[in-house]
Amino acid sequence: MTSEAARPEDARPTRRRPGGRTARIRAQVHDAVLAELGEHGYDGLTMDAVAARAGVHRATVYRRWGDVGGLLADFLDAASDDDWRPPDTASLKGDLAALNREIQDALTARPPIVAALIAASFRSEQADQAQRRLWEDRYARCEVIVGRAVRRGELPPHTDARRLLIAATAPVYHQLVLLRTPPDPHLPDRAARTAALAASAGAFAEPPPDDDA
Amino acid sequence: MTSEAARPEDARPTRRRPGGRTARIRAQVHDAVLAELGEHGYDGLTMDAVAARAGVHRATVYRRWGDVGGLLADFLDAASDDDWRPPDTASLKGDLAALNREIQDALTARPPIVAALIAASFRSEQADQAQRRLWEDRYARCEVIVGRAVRRGELPPHTDARRLLIAATAPVYHQLVLLRTPPDPHLPDRAARTAALAASAGAFAEPPPDDDA
Repeated sequence: MTSEAARPEDARPTRRRPGGRTARIRAQVHDAVLAELGEHGYDGLTMDAVAARAGVHRATVYRRWGDVGGLLADFLDAASDDDWRPPDTASLKGDLAALNREIQDALTARPPIVAALIAASFRSEQADQAQRRLWEDRYARCEVIVGRAVRRGELPPHTDARRLLIAATAPVYHQLVLLRTPPDPHLPDRAARTAALAASAGAFAEPPPDDDA
Repeated sequence: MTSEAARPEDARPTRRRPGGRTARIRAQVHDAVLAELGEHGYDGLTMDAVAARAGVHRATVYRRWGDVGGLLADFLDAASDDDWRPPDTASLKGDLAALNREIQDALTARPPIVAALIAASFRSEQADQAQRRLWEDRYARCEVIVGRAVRRGELPPHTDARRLLIAATAPVYHQLVLLRTPPDPHLPDRAARTAALAASAGAFAEPPPDDDA
């Protein structure tokens, strides 16, 4: 599944066209969003500051993106317009641990761009929907981790990839985004090992053995 | 661990004294916060509306709580001033599933009070700290689930209770608060079963077997 396939608004005018003026302006505006968000967070993000920083006419920014929610949504959609692939370490536990380290690094980076985008998703309906599209894209790309583990014989063929991936990554998000505990260098590996152990024990087998216990 | 023990600001004047005027005003204000939050969310919560709804002088509300962040923090602190105990179903998996169902119910309740409080914790430093105190209180109270499972012989004696509890509950928070997937009636049980399977496989044994894999 590619990021393009996940996006029904594929035909919109801001679609990336390398070298075109539209694409150039979009890239300048995204760079400005990134810089403003890093310096001031969501609360300090304004259309005018982004336009000024990007060197783009205010009228253009308002016409194309509408408001701060529209800017953030387009910025988030552009984030999946890349060739990111999950780590391949030749073991399920290793892949999940490497993935969790990427997530922990992103959530604790300075300036806290990812944290600011997640916070923004609580404020703007457009940013919320774009954040969900980005997560859907990332989790879909990560399903290859489970496919490889099945082919290596580490997991049974009928393993629910999405549930396994969510179980592996959820503790990292929960601790860093909601509980806001200080980053624990062992957290990515431990959450990965927990999910891999549960997977080996059949926790994500399909169909689930019993939902009424 | 009781909620009082978790609160260093124990001696503050708004401490609950059943029957006292201070306690009565505090309860009225909390009721008003609850109602306003349910109707208007964090963005619509104002000191004046809370004062009017509570039937308390504006000056009193401003003097005692300062601002909306202070109101929310005190509201959250009061939430742990109860005798809540985690469910006791006589099995680890059953206890974790019942706990997860309580969490899912709270996160999907209408009006969305818990969701609004979590959203507020991204906006107000005071609400953030109070939300973290409340979570600390709840997770501390839940450790008895793990103690009971150890006594029943379901788990090894040196099990890291907190890591187990976070692994069990994190998928529910992650899916409902961040990923915002539609509520899945199977989610509480499946997340509980996954954590219980991992626990049986030694995922939360202390000291952890190996952090470098």
